[in-house]
Amino acid sequence: MSEFIPSFKDIVEAHNRIRTFIHKTPVLTNQSINQIVQCELYFKCENFQKVGAFKFRGASNAVFSLTPEEASKGVATHSSGNHAAALALAARMRGIPSYIVMPENAPEIKKTAVAGYGAQITFCKPTQQAREETLDKLVQATGATFVHPYNNFRVISGQGTACKELLEEVPNLDIVLSPVGGGGLLSGTSISAKAIKERVIVYGAEPKNADDAHRSFHSGIIQPSVSPKTIADGLLTSLGSMTFEIIRNNVTDILLVDEETIVKAMRLVWERMKIIIEPSSAVPLAAVMLNPHLFRGVKTGIILSGGNVELTKLPF
Amino acid sequence: MSEFIPSFKDIVEAHNRIRTFIHKTPVLTNQSINQIVQCELYFKCENFQKVGAFKFRGASNAVFSLTPEEASKGVATHSSGNHAAALALAARMRGIPSYIVMPENAPEIKKTAVAGYGAQITFCKPTQQAREETLDKLVQATGATFVHPYNNFRVISGQGTACKELLEEVPNLDIVLSPVGGGGLLSGTSISAKAIKERVIVYGAEPKNADDAHRSFHSGIIQPSVSPKTIADGLLTSLGSMTFEIIRNNVTDILLVDEETIVKAMRLVWERMKIIIEPSSAVPLAAVMLNPHLFRGVKTGIILSGGNVELTKLPF
Repeated sequence: MSEFIPSFKDIVEAHNRIRTFIHKTPVLTNQSINQIVQCELYFKCENFQKVGAFKFRGASNAVFSLTPEEASKGVATHSSGNHAAALALAARMRGIPSYIVMPENAPEIKKTAVAGYGAQITFCKPTQQAREETLDKLVQATGATFVHPYNNFRVISGQGTACKELLEEVPNLDIVLSPVGGGGLLSGTSISAKAIKERVIVYGAEPKNADDAHRSFHSGIIQPSVSPKTIADGLLTSLGSMTFEIIRNNVTDILLVDEETIVKAMRLVWERMKIIIEPSSAVPLAAVMLNPHLFRGVKTGIILSGGNVELTKLPF
Repeated sequence: MSEFIPSFKDIVEAHNRIRTFIHKTPVLTNQSINQIVQCELYFKCENFQKVGAFKFRGASNAVFSLTPEEASKGVATHSSGNHAAALALAARMRGIPSYIVMPENAPEIKKTAVAGYGAQITFCKPTQQAREETLDKLVQATGATFVHPYNNFRVISGQGTACKELLEEVPNLDIVLSPVGGGGLLSGTSISAKAIKERVIVYGAEPKNADDAHRSFHSGIIQPSVSPKTIADGLLTSLGSMTFEIIRNNVTDILLVDEETIVKAMRLVWERMKIIIEPSSAVPLAAVMLNPHLFRGVKTGIILSGGNVELTKLPF
């Protein structure tokens, strides 16, 4: 294993570092969903995390790991999603500047949220090249530290604290499931799970329509997404070098799910648990619904990744 | 005070009776909502209660208070809402029949839910007269015990257990707020609140468009609703003799709110707290938003009454 990959010790350190800044989110269970899927599910509710997503764990670990000198110059990233909001809030909590590159066509609601956390936003054309070039210029001009949304040691260590809390609360899980996009959450989850309970099985859950992690996992070579299109808009990104290595080491399989089952799973959680989750959060439950042979009767932990959804644009 | 009105002792007994059947729901607080309303709010989440509403507390207290002989003949009510589902589930848990009179135009989703809990449903024309006549016939034919949705000693005692739990968890509240429809929840809430903390202020919160409790409270005479029309569909009913007397004794005022603020408050809870509440649950928060002079800086408890909402018919 490469020296640059976080160990569980790094996750423990991250947890101690961010403990006072994050919410310790609840673990919920629901009898009627358990009856439907014939298995015992424990949901770690990162939809209740600050900024409404697990991303705040990794972002705050990155921000609070900086030396005072690094910190004084601020942090930067390109993101139109939860990572941008998370980094902006973490930076504000430390009292340092944050610079966020957003595509000019990002939803208004996300621009407003990130601006509301005090970030300095730079807009760019909605291409990967424009995002990277704009970010490079910003970093050169300000000296800010770039915090990658997932392929980052500190970010992965922070994300691993969610599964650590889950297993501390429900120690005897046999399977742990998380969604996989760039792989930061699944990486951190898998490191924690395997360290706390060696024989636990860790699965990633991924939309069929954005199946780069599945293809990469099974071919042994990183295969980027090509114009992915899924309602699970947090899972459009492709694995990075670091997350790919961790996932190959720790994860048993990447389970694929169709769009219809994602919506069905999302609705089931809304209706039965009365909590709001975003489509990406519903992907693991969809995987449970589609693979009864793997989960029947098994104590299974699911990381609900977030709850940021436009209420005026629901899929039901 | 009439001998037929529950005391706090009855609520304590109810709590001991139903404790193993109900969920002890969480009390949540949310920093960003507190900042917006400039007050410290504690939400008692009865949207997470069984059948998705506080109604299960009163219904289960009524069902489990029956003697074995009474119980063997079952329970009956007329309701198209949460009380019907609550009574049906409580009856099923005790293993006795339940007979529910529903108007034939009740939403399919509610018919399905009540049937799913094993109730025997009798449909009738959608008039008050038809409901009562149909129920009378059922009760005569079966010997079942009629459990009124709110004007019932056991039901009020059960509803009071939610506020009891709230004040046991957050003892130093200065104000407690609940929505008021028929007044069962507000009655039970006010008995618990005043008994646990004598100087607490209890308000009811009611839609302007269904303001019978407000008019009754201020005129001293029960004034029924006349074709009330509000999005808060759990609050269409009028006070009963028993709930009116309790509310007059214990409650400081009934605060009125407009429809627009109900929707705004509901959306605020969905977006910031990531939990699903029905419009009736949002009425107390709407009252806080409309009366900053009463609540600024004050520790306030709110009973979120339920979370049953048709996801395909949201007001935003």
